[in-house]
Amino acid sequence: MAKVAVLGYGTVGSGVVEVLEKNRSLIAKRAGEELEVKYILDLRDFPGDPYEDRVIHDVEMIMGDPEIQIVCETMGGNEPAYTFSKRAILAGKSVCTSNKELVANHGAELIALAREHRCNYLFEASVGGGIPVIRPLCNALTAERINEISGILNGTTNYILTKMEQEKTRFEDALKSAQELGYAERNPEADVEGQDACRKIAILASLMSGKTVDYRDIYTEGITQITPEDFVYARCMGMTVKLLAMCKRREGEKEEYLAAVAPYLVSGQNPLAGVNDVFNAVFIHGNMLGESMFYGRGAGKLPTASAVVADVVDCAKHPGEHIICLWEEEKIRLLDFGQTKGRFLVRVKEAGEDRARNLFGDFEKIVPDGITGEFAFVTKVMREEEAVQKFGGLPELVARIRIKD
Amino acid sequence: MAKVAVLGYGTVGSGVVEVLEKNRSLIAKRAGEELEVKYILDLRDFPGDPYEDRVIHDVEMIMGDPEIQIVCETMGGNEPAYTFSKRAILAGKSVCTSNKELVANHGAELIALAREHRCNYLFEASVGGGIPVIRPLCNALTAERINEISGILNGTTNYILTKMEQEKTRFEDALKSAQELGYAERNPEADVEGQDACRKIAILASLMSGKTVDYRDIYTEGITQITPEDFVYARCMGMTVKLLAMCKRREGEKEEYLAAVAPYLVSGQNPLAGVNDVFNAVFIHGNMLGESMFYGRGAGKLPTASAVVADVVDCAKHPGEHIICLWEEEKIRLLDFGQTKGRFLVRVKEAGEDRARNLFGDFEKIVPDGITGEFAFVTKVMREEEAVQKFGGLPELVARIRIKD
Repeated sequence: MAKVAVLGYGTVGSGVVEVLEKNRSLIAKRAGEELEVKYILDLRDFPGDPYEDRVIHDVEMIMGDPEIQIVCETMGGNEPAYTFSKRAILAGKSVCTSNKELVANHGAELIALAREHRCNYLFEASVGGGIPVIRPLCNALTAERINEISGILNGTTNYILTKMEQEKTRFEDALKSAQELGYAERNPEADVEGQDACRKIAILASLMSGKTVDYRDIYTEGITQITPEDFVYARCMGMTVKLLAMCKRREGEKEEYLAAVAPYLVSGQNPLAGVNDVFNAVFIHGNMLGESMFYGRGAGKLPTASAVVADVVDCAKHPGEHIICLWEEEKIRLLDFGQTKGRFLVRVKEAGEDRARNLFGDFEKIVPDGITGEFAFVTKVMREEEAVQKFGGLPELVARIRIKD
Repeated sequence: MAKVAVLGYGTVGSGVVEVLEKNRSLIAKRAGEELEVKYILDLRDFPGDPYEDRVIHDVEMIMGDPEIQIVCETMGGNEPAYTFSKRAILAGKSVCTSNKELVANHGAELIALAREHRCNYLFEASVGGGIPVIRPLCNALTAERINEISGILNGTTNYILTKMEQEKTRFEDALKSAQELGYAERNPEADVEGQDACRKIAILASLMSGKTVDYRDIYTEGITQITPEDFVYARCMGMTVKLLAMCKRREGEKEEYLAAVAPYLVSGQNPLAGVNDVFNAVFIHGNMLGESMFYGRGAGKLPTASAVVADVVDCAKHPGEHIICLWEEEKIRLLDFGQTKGRFLVRVKEAGEDRARNLFGDFEKIVPDGITGEFAFVTKVMREEEAVQKFGGLPELVARIRIKD
């Protein structure tokens, strides 16, 4: 019987307890032994909860109990999660976490520490909720050189964009509906400004490169500027708008990586175009495999908890053993986003046509049914900083969206 | 340095050598040591091939060489692949295979043998080519009770169906085009009659249940009867036609499973509907996670070889250790297919309307533009054997296709 401690009895933490209970016998078979939750650490009491008797307030009971081999960190945030995770690992206890913030900030360090102390720091639940994403990168696609990871990594924004597309609603209304359904927080900034997706792609980019990608280095743009009209243009081009988090490897004299989070026009042929509502998906391009994609529920209590418990099962199967994960503390410098190249869809007021042609050269006008007073065109492939400069010289600019190549 | 032997230098075998060479340093990092192909067993010689000097004709050189710890079985077919795999495992050598035939026939036995001899029988490449499918089931979704696996598991038939849908071609013409492109064999029966998909779903169903599902017990129907008109009906219903291989778990007093391979009408909302051309996908429903899907290239030299090499990396990371896979030799009896329930789209000649109403009760007629002399309707949920009986009493029947629920 392996004894488990859960740190934080919120949504994910209570989900972990529920998954362990509901699928108890199946999980025992796969882990090779029964798993039992011995402690639940939380500041609150939970009178009437079936696990009331496991709830404790003093983390020392967990750290000092040699029976506890596995700790689920489902508190979120940097502190005290960081201190608790580090102490657990130093005591040889494996930590399984859903905390993308902490993984993005200290993943490499905690993995190295776990290696030293023959235990594990596992974080499948930190990206893509219940979709196995971390495992394919670390343990399945091991014969591949990964060239690109592009993901729809935030369910809230994908729900909002889907609603804007399908019901032609404005951003503010779609956000309100997401809040009413509990998909978006009252303070939705971390989601709609792309910060959540940014933490997640930082983790995936780190695993892709084997070094540390600092999320603060990643160009990040949210979806607050997207309008129903953008979808009208997208539709008439056979495309849709998705908030993509991506990391690409550029082959050259030395390995270079670029990463960004931004709304992109995505072709209907791209499998990411069909990923709707709160679903997440991660598209991976490997040099042998070509395209592959992993799709599923990227958030929610039980899907996320299921991923934490899968990590717990891995730890239980390999007591005293460190599962290899190549992620070093050394930081990599991403390519300057201004130097990256791509195409844009540019929306311009009618009066700006001549100026736009002077700036961008000849183009074909796109004028979808139902749009008046403006038109759009697609730029040639150009450097980001060059494009930004030209947009600055075009007062008739209505909007611009990058096009996913 | 781990030494590897490759059995069979055909498409997949030569791909394995190529992947090991092209991604040599990356793979060494992930495996924890260099991997070197020491022998390539084949009946033929390969003069001029860069690996010419590794080619041998006598399997005893491999079996008797203690340096060889990992064997890639890329011969296909039952014999001599079975004998060679068994002998390797008895000698404590891990076997990594792409051979779905052999895995479907002897998977449980060879896994049990590998467990006894502290080595592995791994078969990621046997289903879904390069898409990690086996690993998610065995190692990632370990906190889930899997309720359903539905897959597009054969690239050839998916290419044919996509072409029939998009270009309105007949089956025979689409098949010819698939043959010209090298997607279909000269003798395409194993693909178009569903036998290939049947072997693969038998493997997945076995992993889902933990026992052995005999592929001979799985109801299997191919795509040779599908016509462009079926796609006209599908389109007007917001659906498409896909060859699905599926296994479902039915909760009851005891666990029961049903499995089938057949063309199904799939709703445009189902993520499988967007899987086109030679791509494969596996949809999994777990009791905690809900829906997830794994998508990618289900065949082809390098994608399949990449999956074999990922298994080789796993073996190299865990020398002398058996990676747990729950698949017992005990057979499970599938639910009688005649007793399963579902709905059908039924196409009937105009003259048969009254008889159809007498047999199936009231229905709404579906008459798409461009179809004359016939109509279609959707049945109520009914038992397969009851439907078959009624179809027998309807001489005006043109076609019937099951509808994926």
